[in-house]
This record gives sequence, C-alpha cells and structure tokens, in this order.
Amino acid sequence: MKYTELTREQLEKEYSVIRARYDRLCEEKLSLNLTRGKPEKKQLDLSNDMYTALNNCDFEMDGIDVRNYGLLDGLPSCKRLFSDILGCSPDEIIIGGNSSLNLMYDLIAKAYTNGLLHSERPWCKEEKIKFLCPVPGYDRHFNISISFGMECIPVPLHEDGPDMDIVEELVKDPLVKGMWCTPKYSNPDGFIYSSEVRQRIASLDTAAPDFALIWDNAYAVHCFDGTLPEFPDMIGECRKAGHPDMIYEFASLSKVTFAGSGIAAVASSKDNLTHIRKILTFQTIGFEKVAQYLHVKFLKDKETILKHMEKHAAIMKPKFDAVQNALETELGSLGIADWTHPKGGYFVSLYAMHGTAKRINTLCADAGVAMTKAGATYPHGYDPDDSNLRIAPSYPELPDVIKAMQVLCVSVRLAALELLLGKLGG
Amino acid sequence: MKYTELTREQLEKEYSVIRARYDRLCEEKLSLNLTRGKPEKKQLDLSNDMYTALNNCDFEMDGIDVRNYGLLDGLPSCKRLFSDILGCSPDEIIIGGNSSLNLMYDLIAKAYTNGLLHSERPWCKEEKIKFLCPVPGYDRHFNISISFGMECIPVPLHEDGPDMDIVEELVKDPLVKGMWCTPKYSNPDGFIYSSEVRQRIASLDTAAPDFALIWDNAYAVHCFDGTLPEFPDMIGECRKAGHPDMIYEFASLSKVTFAGSGIAAVASSKDNLTHIRKILTFQTIGFEKVAQYLHVKFLKDKETILKHMEKHAAIMKPKFDAVQNALETELGSLGIADWTHPKGGYFVSLYAMHGTAKRINTLCADAGVAMTKAGATYPHGYDPDDSNLRIAPSYPELPDVIKAMQVLCVSVRLAALELLLGKLGG
Repeated sequence: MKYTELTREQLEKEYSVIRARYDRLCEEKLSLNLTRGKPEKKQLDLSNDMYTALNNCDFEMDGIDVRNYGLLDGLPSCKRLFSDILGCSPDEIIIGGNSSLNLMYDLIAKAYTNGLLHSERPWCKEEKIKFLCPVPGYDRHFNISISFGMECIPVPLHEDGPDMDIVEELVKDPLVKGMWCTPKYSNPDGFIYSSEVRQRIASLDTAAPDFALIWDNAYAVHCFDGTLPEFPDMIGECRKAGHPDMIYEFASLSKVTFAGSGIAAVASSKDNLTHIRKILTFQTIGFEKVAQYLHVKFLKDKETILKHMEKHAAIMKPKFDAVQNALETELGSLGIADWTHPKGGYFVSLYAMHGTAKRINTLCADAGVAMTKAGATYPHGYDPDDSNLRIAPSYPELPDVIKAMQVLCVSVRLAALELLLGKLGG
Repeated sequence: MKYTELTREQLEKEYSVIRARYDRLCEEKLSLNLTRGKPEKKQLDLSNDMYTALNNCDFEMDGIDVRNYGLLDGLPSCKRLFSDILGCSPDEIIIGGNSSLNLMYDLIAKAYTNGLLHSERPWCKEEKIKFLCPVPGYDRHFNISISFGMECIPVPLHEDGPDMDIVEELVKDPLVKGMWCTPKYSNPDGFIYSSEVRQRIASLDTAAPDFALIWDNAYAVHCFDGTLPEFPDMIGECRKAGHPDMIYEFASLSKVTFAGSGIAAVASSKDNLTHIRKILTFQTIGFEKVAQYLHVKFLKDKETILKHMEKHAAIMKPKFDAVQNALETELGSLGIADWTHPKGGYFVSLYAMHGTAKRINTLCADAGVAMTKAGATYPHGYDPDDSNLRIAPSYPELPDVIKAMQVLCVSVRLAALELLLGKLGG
C-alpha cells in the first residue's frame, strides 16, 4: 500500500492507527539517542589492553624516548602504520594529536593566516572564499568552513560520489578553494566514491592554484559487512594526474581504539608537508607520542587492525541489520521513504517525504528519541527538501536501537500522513 | 683580577693560557648539549607508574567514560587539579592537549581569524599588530608573534618583572594587542615577577580593548631549591583591578610527568572561555581524556604534586649547583660576565661581555658543546648587546653538565680576551 495512492478516507483511517501506535510509544517514556557516531562501551573495551596489558613497556620506539619532547612529525613506526592503512608513503604523513577534525581545522586555519603552498596570499586577505560541500555530508566539515566565513556551495552527492559535472564547472571559479570529501562510507549515506569519480577528482582543473581537496578518509578500515573494498591511495592518484599538491588526506584511529583518544594523521605531498611543517614548528614542539607508541604496540600493522575491526563489526552489524529490518518492514511498501544500505562507516541515511524531516525530528524527540537535527547534513542546517535524516545506531545497545527505530519509523509514517492530510505543523 | 684592568701584556699572557685550555678541551672531542629545557631520563622515570602501575583502571572519572567522545572542556577532576595549582576557579579552566605552547598558538590564531571577546574585528583585518616582548624571553613565544606577522617590541625584563614604566607607555598605542609573560622562573633568567609589578600589570590601562596578557605560568610548581614561593592567582588580580578579560593564563604538566605527553590548560575569565568555547567547538570534539584521567589518578592534588616535584628537584639541583659553581669559580672575579641565580624553572641566564655571545656560541660549538643560539632569547634572534646566553642544564647527566660548563666558561673567557685584544672574529 503506497500512501500516495490512498484515498482521503483510507489516509484518515491509517492516520488514526499510526497515531495510536505513536501515542503508545510516547507512554513508554523512552530516553534513547540515535545522534552521534560514537562507539558503544563494548567496542571501547576491545582496546583496553592497549593500556592495561602493557608488557615490555620501555617507552622507547624507533630509538626514541617517547616520553620526552621532540619529533614534530610523529614516530616513524606510527607513520608506517598509517601508510599501511592509506597506501601512501610514510614520508607523506604527519602524525597529529587525537583528532583528525582538529587537523582539518588547523589546515584551514593555516590557509587563512599563512596560506597554503601555492596560495598567492593568506586566505584572510581574499575578498571571499568558497568551498564545495557534497550533500548530504558531515556537519562538522561544513561548520569549519562556516566558522571561517566561507561560502558553502552544496553539490549533490550520488551513490558513486559528488556530481562531477557540477564540480568541474564550479572549480572554474578561482574563489572556489576546496572541497570536503568523505570518500569511503560517506557520512551520512555510507557511499563509496567510484574509481571513475576518483579519477575525475584527481584530474580536476581548478582555477585556484591552492585548491584544497580535503579527503577525509575517516572510515578507511571501518567495514562491518563483508570484506573491505579496495581503495587505491588517492595521494598517488593526484600525483599521477599532475596535481600532487591538491590533496590533503586525513585518517584517524579514533574509531579503531578509543573514540576520544585515538591518533590522527594528515597525509599529503612531500612539498605540502614541508610547507605545513614550517608553520607547525611555531605551533608545537610535538604531538603526544606515548599514545602513538601504545597504538603501534597494540595495533602493529594493517593485518592486525583488520582483525581488530572484525570485532567491531561483530558488534556493529546486528545494529545496522536492525536498522535495515525496521526500515524495510515498516516503510518498505509505503512509497514515502528511501534509505541507504552501507556496509561500513557509522551511519544510515534516510530520505523521508519532502517537507517532513523536521516534523519527524520533533515527533521522535517528543517520544523520547533524540535524532541528529534534520538539515544537519547540509551547510547551515538547510536541507532544501527537508527530507534527509541521519541514523547513527552505534552507541545504543541493540534492544535500544530496535526500540528507537520503531519510534523513528512510526514518526516517518505519521509525518507523511499529516502532510498528505494537510495536518502538518500540528 | 678583572680582565678590563689588565695591561695588554697581561691580557696576551692570559690569552695564551686560556687558548691552551680551550685547545685541550677541543681535543676531548666532546658532544654535549646545553640547549633545550628538557628533563633527563631519570626525571621521566619518576612518572612511569602513571602507565605501568595502573590499578582500578576502569577508564571512568566524574561519571564519564574517558575513552569515548565528548567533554570539550576536559574532565572536571582535571580542571580541579589545575585550579589547585593556579589558585583560580575550576570553571575558569579549559583542559587542552599535550602542549601549552599549542594552546597559546591557538589563542593567537583565533584572535587572527575570529577575534577575541572584545575585538572590534579579527586581527587579520587590522593594518598591524604589535606585541610586547619582555627580553630576554622565550624564543617560542616571540616566534608565534613573528609567524603571524606581528611587530615584536622588546621591553627590558628586570629582576622583578618587565619595566613597567615602559610597558605603561607602550600600551597607550591601540595597535599593541598583548604581552608575553613568563611570570614565575622566567625563561631564561629565572626571575619571579614581584607583587608590585603584578599589580601594575593587572591595572594596565590599555588602549586596545582586546589586549591579551599571555601569562605563561610554565613553572608554577617547578621549584628546585627551597620552598615554592607564594604566587597569588593572577586571574583574580586582573578581575579585582577591573580587567577580568585581559588575561589568558597557561599551565602544563609536561615538566611534571612526561615532557611530550603532559596535559596543558588555559585559564581565563568565564566570559573569555565562553567566547573561546564557541570557536573551539568547530575545531574539535574534545581533547584527549585518557591522559587527563591518568594524570589525575597519578598526581591527585597539589600536595602530591609538590612531593613529586621534590623528586625532580633532587635531580635538578645538583646540576644547577654545578652551573653556579662553574660560573663563580671560572668567571667570578673577572668582571666579564653576570648571571642569574634561579631557584626554579629550567634555565640560567648568562650575560657575557657585550659583543661576545655569538663568538662564545661558535667557540662552544667547535669544542663540541651545543648552546642555545646567541640572540635566541630576543625577537628575531637579535640581541642588541650580543651578550645573553641561555644555559639549560637539565637534560645532560651531571658529569656532562660539569664538563660542558668548563667549555662554556673557558669560551666566555677566550671571547672576552679576543675582544679586549682586538682579535674578535678570529
């Protein structure tokens, strides 16, 4: 039964059934949360041994006392670990602190105050800066741009990546200085950029000489269903395409070990890193190396990491299955919603009837289920269709995910019925 | 025997004696280092238990799972630890990462890109920014200013703090936006700002509404000789003087536990912190909390910290004594050098005959002793007197400090003799 094909009478009848279901769920006085992509406690427990089962703890690695000052770039062994994950060379990597977001923020901040390698002047001296924002996307990416006063230009994100016809047009504008990308298991859709799209990105002929492709490889090893797909080193792809200095890749172990206490890294061309290092040397004597040391001892190499990620997957998959089951069972036949089917990352993207996402947010909140704010996946929180909702099922335990999904699905139905019956806003 | 009172003949004789001593030292093919203020291995060993003797390690503190995302400000218990040290309130503190230098850099960066609380516009939109630099001072402070293109204005630092007559004049210029201070055991002199100077600083009537007093309390508990002097909370002093938002205080546990892996904090008025938090929220989801947790478990409170610092003192004091002994024995009667007698911090400041510091640097280097570059304690490395040298005896072991000091003292004498004999530059 498609809602859009129902008569008004049928709609009214359905409305009273769904409204009653919703009211009963409200009576349960729930307090559930499907907002942020946070690992649950059991996932964090997987890495406790990093601290609690220390053996041969001499605080020495690569011939360096990891407790003392120094080594701006990070431990060589830690660079090798990241190069193992990303496929680039260890000398194309700088290890940062605990947050890849912070590294991205810092890169943009340095572009503003000092300029990037090929900048004609610091970005703060430019009249205006524009940045391409594939949508839906990660709110914290867009918000970095907004915090620096950039104009965010939304670009549709398809299943194979950003709409490249549009991107290729937009980068002819010299004020367009970069693009935010989460190329693997995109946030929130869970899409993986195709080989063709990656090629077109690497080959982009940008008017800005200092165009910054922010390649946030946040979920490089975060597959929870099946085997990790091949994903060639994008730094090498850009170099081959003649744009070695266009790309800044970011990666993080936050969702491998401890969410708040992982290790982040930036990878880029050697020339870019030389430029960054020059500015970085004013900023710090060095990032935290004990955590780097502990991560290298615990995670060892890519093979060990992938085995470790299987343990995460075993906890994550049932929750993502529960999300898919709920959506299919509750909404599969109604013609009022689409959603994505990711095999990695931390999110599922739900597209409800246009004009109902905010209402669904409110309905869920009133029933005790916190959802990521409708629109959050668009710059300035503005989803022109008022349709996209991000589902983040990782943090709650499975029974809570199941219950929260009931509330969400009933809310999606109720909002759709309200819209079709002209009751929306009530 | 004062060198300046010797006849040319006596000088020539002394020169051949000292030159011979210097040549003999060169033959030893030394490789010693008195440059950076780094703790030695035994000092680092004092804190190994923070990681290796974890008990009841549940990764929970203040009701928070310290492994997961969140808590932009840092753990409440960690704020209390810092408030215990600094004397301000815990809600006047934000806990940062491993580096107070990075926090200072970030503050200035935010002033440039967004402006401080009372800024009329971001600093990058100002024609020019000037910053007061008490000299000699910490090169990394000055270099932050330089990296943002500020004009650094040197101000003489006396035993009781910066020359306040000069400072009070200079801050009438609205382009003067701040001042770098290391108020306790200043780097490199080891001076402690007097109560009167602190009062005059707190009462500064600055033309710039967003004047930033950078109060780098780097050595808050770092006394190696006698008892830690009282040092009232400067945030409270500024508030009482009617300038609550002028001060940004920084502190660090780097030289309490692990130099590269301590915890840093910024303390300021609640209004300033609210402003900083608004920008910080774009930068990161939160700083590393496991390290905060481990530090709180290990250091507990001020009393425990002070006891811990006594162990550092027991390692540090013999080295500082060796420095003083060497200077007194070798240079005490010659009238060619003065030096400071700090009871805390990491440095001793040596003032050689004007015009000889660079030469002493070269002589030391040629004899295998690395010294901090002459001039490094002045903005742009320019010491107009070419006199000041920073001695950092903490990192080498005691016998090496003694040997390195021999080389330094002989070099100071040789350079003075060269100058007096008109041989300098040879």
